[in-house]
Amino acid sequence: MKVIFYAAMLAAATLMTTQPVSAQADRKLLSMEDIVLNRELTPKSYPVQWVGASDSYSAIDGAELVAFDARTGKRRSLITIDKLNSLLSTNFKTFPAYGFNDEGMLIVAAHGMRNIIDLKIGKIVASHKVPVGANLTRQSGDGGVYAYTRENNLYCFDGTRERAITSFEDKNIVCGQSVSRNEFGISGGIFFSPDASKIAFYQKDESNVTEFPLFDITTRTGSTNNVKYPMNGMASEHVSLGVYDMATEKTIYLKVTDFDDERYLTNISWSPDSKRIYIQVLDRAQHNVHLNSYDANTGEMLKQILTEHNEKWVEPQHPLVFLKSDPSKFIYSTDNRDGYWNLYLCDDNGVIKRLTATDASVQYLAQDDKNVYYTSAEVSPVETHLFKVDIASGRMTRLTKAEGVHSVSVSKSGRYFLDSYSSLDVPRVVELGRCDGKPARELFRAENPTTAYNYAKIEMGTVKSACGKFDNYYRLIKPLDFDPSKKYPVILYVYGGPHSQMVTNSFLGQLRRWEMYMAQRGYVVFVMDNRGTSNRGAEFEKAINRQCGQAEMADQMEGMKWLMSHEWVDRDRIGVHGWSYGGFMTISLITNYPDVFKVGVAGGPVIDWKWYEVMYGERYMDNTQNNPEGFAKTSLINKAKDLKGKLLICQGVLDDVVVWEHSLSFVRECIKNNVQVDFFPYPRAPHNVQGKDAVHLYTKITNYFEDYL
Amino acid sequence: MKVIFYAAMLAAATLMTTQPVSAQADRKLLSMEDIVLNRELTPKSYPVQWVGASDSYSAIDGAELVAFDARTGKRRSLITIDKLNSLLSTNFKTFPAYGFNDEGMLIVAAHGMRNIIDLKIGKIVASHKVPVGANLTRQSGDGGVYAYTRENNLYCFDGTRERAITSFEDKNIVCGQSVSRNEFGISGGIFFSPDASKIAFYQKDESNVTEFPLFDITTRTGSTNNVKYPMNGMASEHVSLGVYDMATEKTIYLKVTDFDDERYLTNISWSPDSKRIYIQVLDRAQHNVHLNSYDANTGEMLKQILTEHNEKWVEPQHPLVFLKSDPSKFIYSTDNRDGYWNLYLCDDNGVIKRLTATDASVQYLAQDDKNVYYTSAEVSPVETHLFKVDIASGRMTRLTKAEGVHSVSVSKSGRYFLDSYSSLDVPRVVELGRCDGKPARELFRAENPTTAYNYAKIEMGTVKSACGKFDNYYRLIKPLDFDPSKKYPVILYVYGGPHSQMVTNSFLGQLRRWEMYMAQRGYVVFVMDNRGTSNRGAEFEKAINRQCGQAEMADQMEGMKWLMSHEWVDRDRIGVHGWSYGGFMTISLITNYPDVFKVGVAGGPVIDWKWYEVMYGERYMDNTQNNPEGFAKTSLINKAKDLKGKLLICQGVLDDVVVWEHSLSFVRECIKNNVQVDFFPYPRAPHNVQGKDAVHLYTKITNYFEDYL
Repeated sequence: MKVIFYAAMLAAATLMTTQPVSAQADRKLLSMEDIVLNRELTPKSYPVQWVGASDSYSAIDGAELVAFDARTGKRRSLITIDKLNSLLSTNFKTFPAYGFNDEGMLIVAAHGMRNIIDLKIGKIVASHKVPVGANLTRQSGDGGVYAYTRENNLYCFDGTRERAITSFEDKNIVCGQSVSRNEFGISGGIFFSPDASKIAFYQKDESNVTEFPLFDITTRTGSTNNVKYPMNGMASEHVSLGVYDMATEKTIYLKVTDFDDERYLTNISWSPDSKRIYIQVLDRAQHNVHLNSYDANTGEMLKQILTEHNEKWVEPQHPLVFLKSDPSKFIYSTDNRDGYWNLYLCDDNGVIKRLTATDASVQYLAQDDKNVYYTSAEVSPVETHLFKVDIASGRMTRLTKAEGVHSVSVSKSGRYFLDSYSSLDVPRVVELGRCDGKPARELFRAENPTTAYNYAKIEMGTVKSACGKFDNYYRLIKPLDFDPSKKYPVILYVYGGPHSQMVTNSFLGQLRRWEMYMAQRGYVVFVMDNRGTSNRGAEFEKAINRQCGQAEMADQMEGMKWLMSHEWVDRDRIGVHGWSYGGFMTISLITNYPDVFKVGVAGGPVIDWKWYEVMYGERYMDNTQNNPEGFAKTSLINKAKDLKGKLLICQGVLDDVVVWEHSLSFVRECIKNNVQVDFFPYPRAPHNVQGKDAVHLYTKITNYFEDYL
Repeated sequence: MKVIFYAAMLAAATLMTTQPVSAQADRKLLSMEDIVLNRELTPKSYPVQWVGASDSYSAIDGAELVAFDARTGKRRSLITIDKLNSLLSTNFKTFPAYGFNDEGMLIVAAHGMRNIIDLKIGKIVASHKVPVGANLTRQSGDGGVYAYTRENNLYCFDGTRERAITSFEDKNIVCGQSVSRNEFGISGGIFFSPDASKIAFYQKDESNVTEFPLFDITTRTGSTNNVKYPMNGMASEHVSLGVYDMATEKTIYLKVTDFDDERYLTNISWSPDSKRIYIQVLDRAQHNVHLNSYDANTGEMLKQILTEHNEKWVEPQHPLVFLKSDPSKFIYSTDNRDGYWNLYLCDDNGVIKRLTATDASVQYLAQDDKNVYYTSAEVSPVETHLFKVDIASGRMTRLTKAEGVHSVSVSKSGRYFLDSYSSLDVPRVVELGRCDGKPARELFRAENPTTAYNYAKIEMGTVKSACGKFDNYYRLIKPLDFDPSKKYPVILYVYGGPHSQMVTNSFLGQLRRWEMYMAQRGYVVFVMDNRGTSNRGAEFEKAINRQCGQAEMADQMEGMKWLMSHEWVDRDRIGVHGWSYGGFMTISLITNYPDVFKVGVAGGPVIDWKWYEVMYGERYMDNTQNNPEGFAKTSLINKAKDLKGKLLICQGVLDDVVVWEHSLSFVRECIKNNVQVDFFPYPRAPHNVQGKDAVHLYTKITNYFEDYL
């Protein structure tokens, strides 16, 4: 089997590499604690933010919060920490988290209150209590009203008293919380109208959703915590959208009738006048979107504005954004029209025009009267840059110049932007950029936090996808003191699932420190994004449709072929490690290519998509009834008998994302086939093992490779 | 640490060894399948049984069931398989399981019926239906009435119709099943009166008993099977004894008032006249026994006949046996009077006399008009022999001569006994013995089934207990081609818990085949019974009181000291393995003696006795409130931080004996202390992993020692 891979040198482009560091005895190696817990290894940041709607930005300068005028650079004091402590009766030693409202007033939480401080007069002008026991709080734009959930119901505090917006005794009815397991861009369940007169909220009925038992060892006799888990092909939650009127204290529900009761109500958007609500309604099968508007007073549907259809899937992810300059128009995001995420200018009659004409993932960021600001991957799939597009002319201008991944915040005026970026060799730079294209001003440049450590060289490059159409980006770390005449064992780290990008032109190429730890111990470490991952357009991303893992494996094996074409690779010592989707990929690879991979460590792996959740899983895999071939081909239950190498599976016992029916069923299948496999549970960990437990985990993973690879 | 052990050669007596087998290339090594599944490696048997009350015994001779007259040896045909098939309309190819009633009629089950065949006339004389869905059936002495349980209730079939004896809708009330988790000799819940006029039955109320969730991966979405598990120090079941009258169809309950509601009702015994029921009532703390008699018609207590008290514990295990020659007298068994289990002749006024005066575990077997037959360990703690005692004179006579472990059945007349025995080098012999002491006649001698395999030598001997008072018996297997000038790794196999004896003078010293498998691979394997194990008297057995594991470890370490005093032991390569109590011992040893044991494999281990069941656990450990020091000292949670070696814990996910709160909590504690440990679950296994799964398990255990020892 293995011979096929090193018959010929395969072409791959190396794009860039970190500056070579000559190995020095006085430089440290990473410890396991460094990998997991050492924050000093993250480049320092310089947190700045716009002071309300002004062109001044704030920064913390020791014991003082200061602001700088973007035009003149003039520094002024906003408030000292002593003054803040005196105002709030607090004892902050360092400046706490803070924000500004549009008027530039400072917002700081203390003693369970949310305080608004008018910096001009140096006084607290408002102080709102965060109700005890409340969570998932949201506040109206002016901060006067809070909405929050307690258990399964939704409440609001109107400044005077608490009101129960819902009062369901049945715990299967859950109000004000996120729905659809946070897919489709959903991250909360409370939506204030712009004028704060109404609160829209998600309500889900989980009566038909089965429960999964999570085993709790901390109770005296052992017990289970049962969580609702809608499983592939089975009954799912029913979602509706309530609208509570602060004045009448009444709730109406939007009359959504599209598709059936298991539809998804995604990307809730209020019209600027607070009269209408827009929903991107998606069918459970995730092939059709209806963008509808509804009357927020009556709940009646007003109009179906546009629809999307896709035989693979369509996945709405962004709410509408209304133009400041013309509230009858809005910006709509989709990747279903031109093969990439783009912005479309629409009104209630549908699409007016495509606003961004870019074959790269576009994401709306901000707007002023004339321009829309967006980021995209058009400079490179591994970089993020800021652009603006003139709404009227469609003229697009690139605003960030330096290579790398930029994170930006545009001032309300549209004149300036704050830009924090990094690239392979640049730890972090914060700049004040100018939207007129004039040169930016550097505000901060971080030291390289790793200079005390003996880091090996990191290379970034591309390998062609198995279909030949795409360049897949990799990150390659060669061992310390790399000698091309020697042979080194390899560890492939893999994630590979949708909505991910492991390799970008950010500091150290987005290195996970464990990779460097292994490189310091003599391993070649290789990481590559395959088809199905994000930022690369619909064809690339949807190549996995109905057979998760197949295109991904084909691409990863192209990467391995290229890697194994090098004489310095010990082809008898290749390992693979990944978590979650990467755990699925790890076991897929070691069972489908048993002669290539000698050792694998899989964490929280999907074993059969029939045990995964409805929202994410059905998008890619449909269900077992409609796609039996796809499920059969991708199920690792069917592959357990093919396992030849050493495989360790780790899983959090409290994993409510990939429930441990997956891994235990795989273990069971191995036992049935008399195939040896290893397993390790993290009894108090959810889907991801974090903090101190992760030190234990990465020690275990490392030991496993050291023992068996 | 290690130095202390090999400073001096320690004295130990080697008692015997298997005949040396010169290693031969043409002999096989054991395979993993041989270890678990190969029945051919068990010596063949020759099943014989007494034909009713006669002095004839039956045997299967090819297609024929035959009987031999014990006196003359004359053979006669009882029935052929063809005749049996024709009578029963069956198609048996080999003779099915069978029995005889007292009249010598043949009893065979077929087609869901229990058939009684009169062999003299060659006809079926009775045929009773075994009710569908019934389990735990019991039948009256004449076979005319069945009692059986279905779900939580008790029913009987009177030959004509089914009657519901109990009809509790509350599933917490369970009737007719075993109680007290089968401790105190309890193995069922239905007790027919001798005249079959009444059925006594256990009834337990488990309302207050907590449930433990066992995780089931076989259901579509994963689920739990919750089992009642009375945990140490917590609320336990309430047991009562009902008595159903077949004539009146009424049930009364015995009025037991001793101690409190969580008392144990043990060793239910009917008087021969069916009028009285005797119970050995035990308090929950297991320090006091009251032997009481009750009126079976009214439920009133008649008399407290005798009591037992013990500051450590008292553990009744045997029902009363009434004398045939004088039904007003009965034989009572206890180890609480003379330091060893002995038989006492009693009547309703209490003990008349000690019947057996032996410092060895005596067990009642049978009686005739003059003698009581019993087995005991008085010849040697590792042998079982048959004795008789003349009831009137107390004269005791040994009846089995050959060394080894004898399993015997005395004929009703008391003239003969059937004896199946084995010893270290004797696979199995079946003899017809004579109770008058005259020589026995050999009926069968099994071939050594292991001759085709290259077995290493097995030695048996003793090492002094840590207290210096006792000889602890060991079994030692030296590697194939043992060369005393070489050094060998050691595996200590340990169980060590109460009611066990791992080393006896039976075939191959009670070898577990995996030991030989390891010896064939170059390991020294050592197994020794420590204080706390059975057959050695109360002082030996109760040395573990209130601190399980401490005396056991001290003794095991004496064994290890002796073993390590030999130059052929590689003291840097010592491993330990055990399951259940042996898993507890394994982890106790590897954490208390981290410099001795390099590798351990523990199965289904107790980690902290607070998570073990009430009945067994409180006997030895009391509860956490009364014995905090004992729990603290023995808890392995406190020892996790001391683990230095490699430890693998295996556990059945469906383990309802040692629930996996134990092992997962230990794993959690290791993680907290950043101590590496390994774990492997058997998802469909209960407390013990059996059948094909055990092939996987023993491969895993073996690999672990091979990888790390």
